[in-house]
Amino acid sequence: MAKEITSRNENYSQWYNDIVVKAGLADYSAVRGCMVIKPYGYAIWEKMRDQLDRMFKETGHQNAYFPLFIPKSFFSREADHVEGFAKECAVVTHYRLKNDPNGKGVVVDDDAKLEEELIVRPTSETIIWNTYKSWIQSYRDLPILINQWANVVRWEMRTRLFLRTAEFLWQEGHTAHETKKEAVEEAERMINVYANFAREWMAMPVIIGRKSEAERFAGAIDTYTIEAMMQDGKALQAGTSHFLGQNFAKAFDVKFLNKDSNLEYVWATSWGVSTRLMGALVMTHSDDNGLVLPPKLAPVQVVFVPIYKSKEELDKVSQVIAPLREQLHARGISTKYDDRDNYKPGFKFAEYEMKGVPVRVAVGPKDIEKGTVEVARRDTLQKQFVPQNQLAETVVTLLDEIQENLYNRALDYRKANTVKVDTYEELKKVLSEKGGFVLAHWDGTAETEALIKEETKATIRCIPLDGEVEEGKCIITGKPSKQRAIFALAY
Amino acid sequence: MAKEITSRNENYSQWYNDIVVKAGLADYSAVRGCMVIKPYGYAIWEKMRDQLDRMFKETGHQNAYFPLFIPKSFFSREADHVEGFAKECAVVTHYRLKNDPNGKGVVVDDDAKLEEELIVRPTSETIIWNTYKSWIQSYRDLPILINQWANVVRWEMRTRLFLRTAEFLWQEGHTAHETKKEAVEEAERMINVYANFAREWMAMPVIIGRKSEAERFAGAIDTYTIEAMMQDGKALQAGTSHFLGQNFAKAFDVKFLNKDSNLEYVWATSWGVSTRLMGALVMTHSDDNGLVLPPKLAPVQVVFVPIYKSKEELDKVSQVIAPLREQLHARGISTKYDDRDNYKPGFKFAEYEMKGVPVRVAVGPKDIEKGTVEVARRDTLQKQFVPQNQLAETVVTLLDEIQENLYNRALDYRKANTVKVDTYEELKKVLSEKGGFVLAHWDGTAETEALIKEETKATIRCIPLDGEVEEGKCIITGKPSKQRAIFALAY
Repeated sequence: MAKEITSRNENYSQWYNDIVVKAGLADYSAVRGCMVIKPYGYAIWEKMRDQLDRMFKETGHQNAYFPLFIPKSFFSREADHVEGFAKECAVVTHYRLKNDPNGKGVVVDDDAKLEEELIVRPTSETIIWNTYKSWIQSYRDLPILINQWANVVRWEMRTRLFLRTAEFLWQEGHTAHETKKEAVEEAERMINVYANFAREWMAMPVIIGRKSEAERFAGAIDTYTIEAMMQDGKALQAGTSHFLGQNFAKAFDVKFLNKDSNLEYVWATSWGVSTRLMGALVMTHSDDNGLVLPPKLAPVQVVFVPIYKSKEELDKVSQVIAPLREQLHARGISTKYDDRDNYKPGFKFAEYEMKGVPVRVAVGPKDIEKGTVEVARRDTLQKQFVPQNQLAETVVTLLDEIQENLYNRALDYRKANTVKVDTYEELKKVLSEKGGFVLAHWDGTAETEALIKEETKATIRCIPLDGEVEEGKCIITGKPSKQRAIFALAY
Repeated sequence: MAKEITSRNENYSQWYNDIVVKAGLADYSAVRGCMVIKPYGYAIWEKMRDQLDRMFKETGHQNAYFPLFIPKSFFSREADHVEGFAKECAVVTHYRLKNDPNGKGVVVDDDAKLEEELIVRPTSETIIWNTYKSWIQSYRDLPILINQWANVVRWEMRTRLFLRTAEFLWQEGHTAHETKKEAVEEAERMINVYANFAREWMAMPVIIGRKSEAERFAGAIDTYTIEAMMQDGKALQAGTSHFLGQNFAKAFDVKFLNKDSNLEYVWATSWGVSTRLMGALVMTHSDDNGLVLPPKLAPVQVVFVPIYKSKEELDKVSQVIAPLREQLHARGISTKYDDRDNYKPGFKFAEYEMKGVPVRVAVGPKDIEKGTVEVARRDTLQKQFVPQNQLAETVVTLLDEIQENLYNRALDYRKANTVKVDTYEELKKVLSEKGGFVLAHWDGTAETEALIKEETKATIRCIPLDGEVEEGKCIITGKPSKQRAIFALAY
């Protein structure tokens, strides 16, 4: 089964696609750019979503739901926003079909044209701020801390499963505050929630930073980002949190009576992560045998495979496995028992390697004699024999170890592929030969950024929040700079 | 606060709308027919969704996600389906906007017209069966037991919050089976899951039955339904489960190699419930003081309100309340402590009555002296004093009692408003004077059904699955009938 996967060295992009499709995560659909998220992929997404949802609620947020459609005119209200979002989008122009007079199925009914076209939401700032207008009168109505789980549509021309699809699933937080200070704190709080989630649940190291003006969200004053490094050295923006200032409040005329009885515009943030995280997860940990999942996000953490020749042997093995599974369930570990009779153990082993199940336990007649089981871990592919009465505690420890090992492995990779450069020549050399994250001084201007992007395709991923303060000179203009930015090719 | 609600007697429809808006469940949006589900309403929906999701998983189903858009031509494949669904729908015709050459915002870019229009899914049978085609080759690939949580759009001309909106949230199960028997069993299993959920969680009695041919889902061989009675005597269809036969398999050419190595079309079911359940919940239990929630679906089960005059008194009361809340949390009961200083207790009482919080606990200086608290239940509005050290167990029992009382009250109401009639005159009389469910013999023909509907507006809600078998004569044609159908006006 593993043979079906293209290796990373051969073709990284094909390797990624093979894993997504062959591990049963997602597939292309009949609709251009739209994917089908298959049950196994959706089960991983559910685990991500549930944990993020808990973290949002712990930080005081509530969920709500706003319309899928946004009146076209709403996009024109915020000047930057319309440039960024209202262009490549799905436009609803009619609300009825009718039978084709020529008898060929159905056609659009021209009599059912909408007065104003509706846009399928690419993001919901406009419809939400239009709603907040009627919810906010006084400082007593603030803060509003709302999150929405939803589907959104951006008409992408070149799509890739999870990484860039016309429709994707995401969450978008939209908060409203009395003061600038509170809003900035909220935007920073949420980028930290994302970073913690990425690190602790996805076992994915990320760098928290600020976007340059050119890379900011359309309509934001400041965009915070978490950036991860994939195994091809490219950066992947895994989540963003925006301080929106009073831009949307002004666009939708949302004012409140402050404590001094003065009318003031409301301060805003928005923040989101999407099914793109699925792509990041795949590319951070997987290998040439298939998907590798961190135990905390694995739908099945331990799979049991029986080794047997006769029905009688299978029965004996099954009797050993049943109480072992119960012991694991009692410790909150999810398991699966694969006793399908029409597949050989070797086939099953390959299948669960492909699907990234963190731990595999095989039990055969010899194990029964010896009172052992064979335990294999997916991350290192190492095997060990474990006494049956020690399996539960071994697995508990092993799952923690795997989670930690995956994080450390990815962190080591990132460190090994991050370099400081002090000249433009060096930057170009590193980017073309080795890739990875390149730390370089930059004069802070859009011109310099654009020049580097044009010549190298690398973008400024972020200016790290905890970056070293260091006097330096821009690698292009030689103007003074106080901190290095991260340059990289990106997804 | 309660005064703001129109009474049921005065205007039932306005009463419903008042509760939905004033309890903070939902509101109209800037987009025609689309609603905003507010945090409190969404929290109730989340509780419904989570419980349903558990019940689906316990019956072997997995979640997945399919595209929002469906190519127009897919609808023409199944003849009945296109009649039922492809007419009133949101049609995406373009994928780009551009700056208005006249400088007025953005306009549709005529160069970005889709070759084939996309329909925003009104239901997903077509896109899903088109996908299943590539997933199913042999009987080994069956059954497929998939559910999807999603938003759908049906272009309704007359909308009502939750009950009928252009966009709504729902789940749709789509299963594929080897045999007719298995598919029928699945359709019946799922209508029973819905009935159990309605009864045990929503405290809403429902009748399980079969739809007449005229009322069936477009494309189904058989539609099962759960029907509930609202407080105005009207029926509300709360969930449906469809045996689709091989209709969609034939439309999308989905065949499998059966155990005898013959190619055969796959058998299908689909089943769904939606945010319409929120409307049913409101109308089943609420009263002229506001929302009444069954404890199992209440986001806050117990609210604590302090009674005090001075800061000192508040501190003392807070000290009594804190451990009481902890005792409830330890029993899995959700609570809220409303110590807002800018609202009087009476205002808070009215607010939580409006929001349907099942139990209210008030604690003041006199209670501290006596070691008691005042406990009020929302369903009957009764109050009692309870020793503080007995509060936890009292509340545990009380929540169960309220859940049961709500169910029994609704069941009594339905029984009191269900009558058997043996003549058409009687049927018309009951429907016009009293409403409710009318059980009458029917000859099973669409003509008779249509006639009754035309003259009385009543539809056949269902033929109850556990209905009495009884020889009788159709109230219109006098032809023989073996079972009474339920006639009613409906939402």
